[in-house]
Amino acid sequence: MDEHHLLAPGPTPVPENARLAMAKRLIHHRSDEFREVFRRVRSGLQWIFQTDEDVITLTSSGTGAFEAAMTNFLSPGSTVVVVGGGKFGERWADVARRYDLDVVEMDVEWGEAADPAQLADILADREDVSMVTVTHSETSTGVLHPLEDLADVVQRESSALLAVDGITSVGVHDVPMDELGVDVLVGGSQKAFGAPPGLGFVAVSARAWRRQPDDHLGGYYFDLSRERRRQSQDQTAFTPGISQVLALDVTLDMMRDEGRRSVFERHRLNAEATRTAVDAVGLELFGARPSNAVTAVLAPDGIPAPQIVDRMNDTYGAVIAGGQKHMSSELLRLGHIGFFRRTDILTMVSSLELCLRDLGHSADAGTATAAAQRVYTNASHQDVPSEP
Amino acid sequence: MDEHHLLAPGPTPVPENARLAMAKRLIHHRSDEFREVFRRVRSGLQWIFQTDEDVITLTSSGTGAFEAAMTNFLSPGSTVVVVGGGKFGERWADVARRYDLDVVEMDVEWGEAADPAQLADILADREDVSMVTVTHSETSTGVLHPLEDLADVVQRESSALLAVDGITSVGVHDVPMDELGVDVLVGGSQKAFGAPPGLGFVAVSARAWRRQPDDHLGGYYFDLSRERRRQSQDQTAFTPGISQVLALDVTLDMMRDEGRRSVFERHRLNAEATRTAVDAVGLELFGARPSNAVTAVLAPDGIPAPQIVDRMNDTYGAVIAGGQKHMSSELLRLGHIGFFRRTDILTMVSSLELCLRDLGHSADAGTATAAAQRVYTNASHQDVPSEP
Repeated sequence: MDEHHLLAPGPTPVPENARLAMAKRLIHHRSDEFREVFRRVRSGLQWIFQTDEDVITLTSSGTGAFEAAMTNFLSPGSTVVVVGGGKFGERWADVARRYDLDVVEMDVEWGEAADPAQLADILADREDVSMVTVTHSETSTGVLHPLEDLADVVQRESSALLAVDGITSVGVHDVPMDELGVDVLVGGSQKAFGAPPGLGFVAVSARAWRRQPDDHLGGYYFDLSRERRRQSQDQTAFTPGISQVLALDVTLDMMRDEGRRSVFERHRLNAEATRTAVDAVGLELFGARPSNAVTAVLAPDGIPAPQIVDRMNDTYGAVIAGGQKHMSSELLRLGHIGFFRRTDILTMVSSLELCLRDLGHSADAGTATAAAQRVYTNASHQDVPSEP
Repeated sequence: MDEHHLLAPGPTPVPENARLAMAKRLIHHRSDEFREVFRRVRSGLQWIFQTDEDVITLTSSGTGAFEAAMTNFLSPGSTVVVVGGGKFGERWADVARRYDLDVVEMDVEWGEAADPAQLADILADREDVSMVTVTHSETSTGVLHPLEDLADVVQRESSALLAVDGITSVGVHDVPMDELGVDVLVGGSQKAFGAPPGLGFVAVSARAWRRQPDDHLGGYYFDLSRERRRQSQDQTAFTPGISQVLALDVTLDMMRDEGRRSVFERHRLNAEATRTAVDAVGLELFGARPSNAVTAVLAPDGIPAPQIVDRMNDTYGAVIAGGQKHMSSELLRLGHIGFFRRTDILTMVSSLELCLRDLGHSADAGTATAAAQRVYTNASHQDVPSEP
């Protein structure tokens, strides 16, 4: 197991100190010790979500958290506009359909960035939209949708709440929730936070709370009002994933030490190094407006993507991701979200070029690695955070 | 932190090897390595749930899992009979009300065991009951409700599904799910399983699957059919709490090594030692039909329970639980669910007697400890499992 490198877009490697925090004796969630930890975690989440509002921690995956984010602010029959363009964007339409909501899907071709004008047209036609959902960083395509412009459109053309899936953008890109007027912003522990999976985060604007309908569709476990009340007292309504909270306490502290700008810059630089490397080795980048969380790239002609993913894993111990749904035979997804060091990126791109050569793709040895190194060398030293 | 002993009815101490499994590098949930682990976990869960059906693992607390257990098998307006008698039993009525179901609460005084004849009367009056919920071991009162008799009544008097909260009974008491005709049985990772909190388990009978209504109330994240499909392939539908699954793999293996009968016997003996000790020191046991997961005991006259809980924690590093809801000033709850060794129980009862004396309760030094020791000494050696 120790020979494998997690190089997927989440779950992402958990720093040793965070793993060691989970190896200590378990603490009780109704203890003062847990309250102290949870107080720090709540404050750290507000800092990285860039909000004065509470960021609610749920013990669930990001999907559960986004379901909570939708259902708690919608009534039976509400109209939801879902901005698609990938597996995750489209998933929120499935959630809405599960609740028999009136779903308007804004179709976006996989790999394209959502067009704010298209959203404006949809909203101009309708008076009754309760919520618009946007997946900021679409993990299935590597696209970063233009959140600022989409948020402007939502605010200009409607009174709808804006719910944003920031699962692979919060902690990677600058997402100033309050400043952008995002109403609900969702994150997940196993992404930029570098904690193990099992916690979802939901930050809710004052406006969304004011407008929460009495007959909202939130269930019992995912009742955000109850959680908000309990969490304001540094407690959770139900027994939380204590181990992940302990790990998250460590990794949020690491992020604070590093500084928010430096965390974003580290992600930007690792993403740039990855993109430059795959381009240098002759692969075609997939998707407009690349996210700094994940680089999606088309497998070379004649080599199916799963073959590369398998060989990367089996021969080089490098766990990258393939494509999802209809892109599964074409796409490779290289993760650089979380506490990745430059050496991790160099490991990833050098094993990728070796693997591609094994499979008959022609490229000079060292090309990808050299390209990634140049990105790091050229980065101004003052912009570069110390390695975590 | 290392000086604290978790002696509450869950979360319960996590064995070192399980904690060390979480300290290893994280693995990806879409990897062969995870599939292997999850296959073992699924099989171990079937073994301890005593069922041939799939036991579905959800990343949530036990409450989330029980909500899933109810909503996936009920339609809008369904009638649910909820057997009360404590905080958890009554919680399932709150869940049902959240979904506007027709809720019939069978009132049971806290501390009493549910009377099967009372349930028979309720069911005899109604044709239309879709589900009966029973909390087998009621953690708030320490009562073990008579599941066998209640199951008989449900099967004789109705065609309702029987959903059982086994969160603090599975792995403690013998709950042969298939044999008893339980339709849905729910457990939680932080209880007898000795893993950290964050996973809930739902075992579902073939009968319940056959009768699952098309318009059931299960949400998206808690869609048990999707999970069942994915988990039959040793995968989860959404990113699971990987760390807890790794820990659970270790503790299920420990349970298998120990043997199911021995696990139950260890719990029985630790419970008997605890009950005998608190009785010896002059405290009154609370509740009929005590559960082997938790001993509920009334605080002595003049000493409020929270004072004892706080002093146990602050002075002796022993984390026991107080009462819940209206019992909060009266009740102490001593946990012995999970991988408790005899030394843990002796630590608990000896610090309790010391603490009680500190607070003015008269008892000869060593009384409780001696009583617990006698229970262990008298236990036939062949019945006693080796310490885990």
